[in-house]
Amino acid sequence: MRRRFGFMLPLVVFAAVTTTILGAQQTPSPSQKPAWLDAYRDPASRLIGEAVSSTFAWDRLAVLTDSIGNRLSGTPALDRAIAWAVTEMNKDGLENVHTEKVMVPKWVRGNESAEIVEPARHAMVMLGLGDSVGTTGDGIQAEVLVVHTFEELDAKAAAAKGRIVLFNVPYTNYGETVRFRSGGPSRAARHGAVGMLIRAVGHSGLRTPHTGALQYAGDVKKIPAAAISSEDADRLQRMADRGSKVIVRLKMDAHFDADAESANVVGEIRGRERPDEVVVVSGHLDSWDVGAGATDDGGGCVVTWEALRIMKKLNLRPRRTVRVVLWTNEENGGRGGLAYRDQHRAELARHVMMLESDGGVFRPLGFGFTGNETGRETVKAIATLLTGIAADQISPGGGGADIGPSMAEARVPGMSLEVDGAKYFLIHHTPADTIDKIDPAEMAKCAAAVAVMAYVVADLPQRLGE
Amino acid sequence: MRRRFGFMLPLVVFAAVTTTILGAQQTPSPSQKPAWLDAYRDPASRLIGEAVSSTFAWDRLAVLTDSIGNRLSGTPALDRAIAWAVTEMNKDGLENVHTEKVMVPKWVRGNESAEIVEPARHAMVMLGLGDSVGTTGDGIQAEVLVVHTFEELDAKAAAAKGRIVLFNVPYTNYGETVRFRSGGPSRAARHGAVGMLIRAVGHSGLRTPHTGALQYAGDVKKIPAAAISSEDADRLQRMADRGSKVIVRLKMDAHFDADAESANVVGEIRGRERPDEVVVVSGHLDSWDVGAGATDDGGGCVVTWEALRIMKKLNLRPRRTVRVVLWTNEENGGRGGLAYRDQHRAELARHVMMLESDGGVFRPLGFGFTGNETGRETVKAIATLLTGIAADQISPGGGGADIGPSMAEARVPGMSLEVDGAKYFLIHHTPADTIDKIDPAEMAKCAAAVAVMAYVVADLPQRLGE
Repeated sequence: MRRRFGFMLPLVVFAAVTTTILGAQQTPSPSQKPAWLDAYRDPASRLIGEAVSSTFAWDRLAVLTDSIGNRLSGTPALDRAIAWAVTEMNKDGLENVHTEKVMVPKWVRGNESAEIVEPARHAMVMLGLGDSVGTTGDGIQAEVLVVHTFEELDAKAAAAKGRIVLFNVPYTNYGETVRFRSGGPSRAARHGAVGMLIRAVGHSGLRTPHTGALQYAGDVKKIPAAAISSEDADRLQRMADRGSKVIVRLKMDAHFDADAESANVVGEIRGRERPDEVVVVSGHLDSWDVGAGATDDGGGCVVTWEALRIMKKLNLRPRRTVRVVLWTNEENGGRGGLAYRDQHRAELARHVMMLESDGGVFRPLGFGFTGNETGRETVKAIATLLTGIAADQISPGGGGADIGPSMAEARVPGMSLEVDGAKYFLIHHTPADTIDKIDPAEMAKCAAAVAVMAYVVADLPQRLGE
Repeated sequence: MRRRFGFMLPLVVFAAVTTTILGAQQTPSPSQKPAWLDAYRDPASRLIGEAVSSTFAWDRLAVLTDSIGNRLSGTPALDRAIAWAVTEMNKDGLENVHTEKVMVPKWVRGNESAEIVEPARHAMVMLGLGDSVGTTGDGIQAEVLVVHTFEELDAKAAAAKGRIVLFNVPYTNYGETVRFRSGGPSRAARHGAVGMLIRAVGHSGLRTPHTGALQYAGDVKKIPAAAISSEDADRLQRMADRGSKVIVRLKMDAHFDADAESANVVGEIRGRERPDEVVVVSGHLDSWDVGAGATDDGGGCVVTWEALRIMKKLNLRPRRTVRVVLWTNEENGGRGGLAYRDQHRAELARHVMMLESDGGVFRPLGFGFTGNETGRETVKAIATLLTGIAADQISPGGGGADIGPSMAEARVPGMSLEVDGAKYFLIHHTPADTIDKIDPAEMAKCAAAVAVMAYVVADLPQRLGE
């Protein structure tokens, strides 16, 4: 999942969509219609037509998620997905298809459970947080302290000792709420807590827990931590509000095995004039170990890869190289993005733009962009080629967790595919992240948008931002 | 859950709501405003005011579902719920509070799992169907035959032998779709199938299975049967569509233990003039063994019980007796309703009306009514007292699974509380049937509607329908 960029609430997104639709009916201003753009109308039409006239992308994602399923770092499933992607890229006729070795952490969930023991016995629906330590033996059993902010925890520090702290924070937006998942375990441990639970970070679902990574601080004891469904958090809250002594048992076999060998997958359309200048499009192939990793982020892998497949099929070879990278280990380590930065350091200065799709492949709205004003004007002009599929919005703050290290290293302009986010935080990191949540036609439009943007940026007479 | 009366699709319900709201603004015709109604305006106001000015009903349901949880027939949890209800009814000051013994079947789910073995290994999210037999030993492993109608199954009869039949029937409405859950296992067994899976009967959720009872035919082998989430059904369908040989392993420890002693819970407000004439209001206290049995049907128990609590509190004692019955064993046997019919046979002729709430306690729309035209005109007139809370609609077909046997035996007029059903079939029979799905203010309005209807019917100068 994306973690660097805040997400809007669904209603805000819907408002933005409305704006886009209305805006699309206005004539673009002259500054958005530079002369060079005209040369791209025909290839853009062909790219869009090829993408939206079939369900190839959705079908490919279905094969990935049905034949392999979810793909946590260090698992045989991720290895199979990597091998499958190499085979398929070669079938597509991509060039220079290869893997780039990355050592990744191997976190193992194991068996896990959480139950309310007092004042009445109830099993809870839970998912241990990624990278959590496990419990020992029969698990930990302790009284629960319910808090709603870090400040409340600090104010009740004395009461946290020996307890399991529950952060019962209603979901507002990801950026605000995920802080408790990331930092909560060590904040609780600092006050002597023996375990941490968090109300699942996402919209309330149907007894739906959301996993996701925690980050332990280096200077306090690591305590086991898990997400529980909003329903179970509500129940614990009610019990506490009634003045009951609430006791929970938490059992988690979670642990790390030794780092495992994994890889980023790379394929290219080599540039016809300046092959050493590169436009990267990307998604991450690893996922959490629940659901099918369809939305997060199998879809992002397939729609960015589609850009190259379609160019190849249409025999559209841009001036510069377009490279698709399917990252490993985005979810719990980011080792894929770091390895790319290190392995490609010598050529990062020739990276013209890097794009990541990691917010779902629902109805595309356009792109986020990070770069200079000249570059922004150029991508805004390119985006007018996407008016017909209403994916022409350019918003501030493009990037992604995996392209971030390279962007930062060499000031590479960054872009993110922006989509209608209403469903994303209902299903991400849950057993319900499955392909049926994705509409084939919307996914095809995502592929079309990425293909047009990547092709034109790679083909521009001038380098993006110059 | 209700099983005798078909349910409308949510959109249809919403349309009905709109009609109600618009209709409520029209002046009732003279026939709907008989002179006797005026005497009930003041008590109706007081009953409504008492119900909607607190969250007593919701709070009571929260105590039931938090301190006891779900309540399958034959479990200690249902026994505790029965004892709790007796204690609480006595605290409320209800009269003649007692239990009436009912022997109930004791179906035990045990451990269960289903996984796809070929063409790729995936765990499925499943719930065995209530009353299903289990599998033996390590479970059954067989190829899957996907069908969508009974006719398709019959046409493919030869292919069903030795297979696990999946009824992959998209949810339309409950009456249409539940046929496959009830009758599917024996239809499949008749063609030699060794197991049956069904796409969960309910709106697609978030990897949400719906349990519910099956009914085996007497003349064919009983085969194990389970519901799988719509996502898993979709995946099996895609695999079959690709031409893959799909193999599933199903393990279920389900079995019956010996019948157990249970009870209907009864409380009354004795009539001030004709105590031997009875108006029954009711819900069922048993539930499935997943979720908290909040919507199905703890809520129905509490809102009908509320009618009596509020009358008592306001010292409103109607002419006839109002009796609340909390039924046992609605979900898998209906033994509570049958026992009441048999135990009360001598007084059924003096049952003036029976009402059941088993469709959720969401925003009330009004009531279904089964009875003669005179009775219908009367309840329509009473319903005008509920215009202020928009619960004044009287629709055809009132009744309920538990009051059905008594209604049929003595031609007792029957009513059902009708509510906005949009959420019901998303959560019923699932782990997500928890109280957070219920709005306290909507639930209070349900209690108000039942209280007014029950009070006035019990107090009418004439007997309902005469």
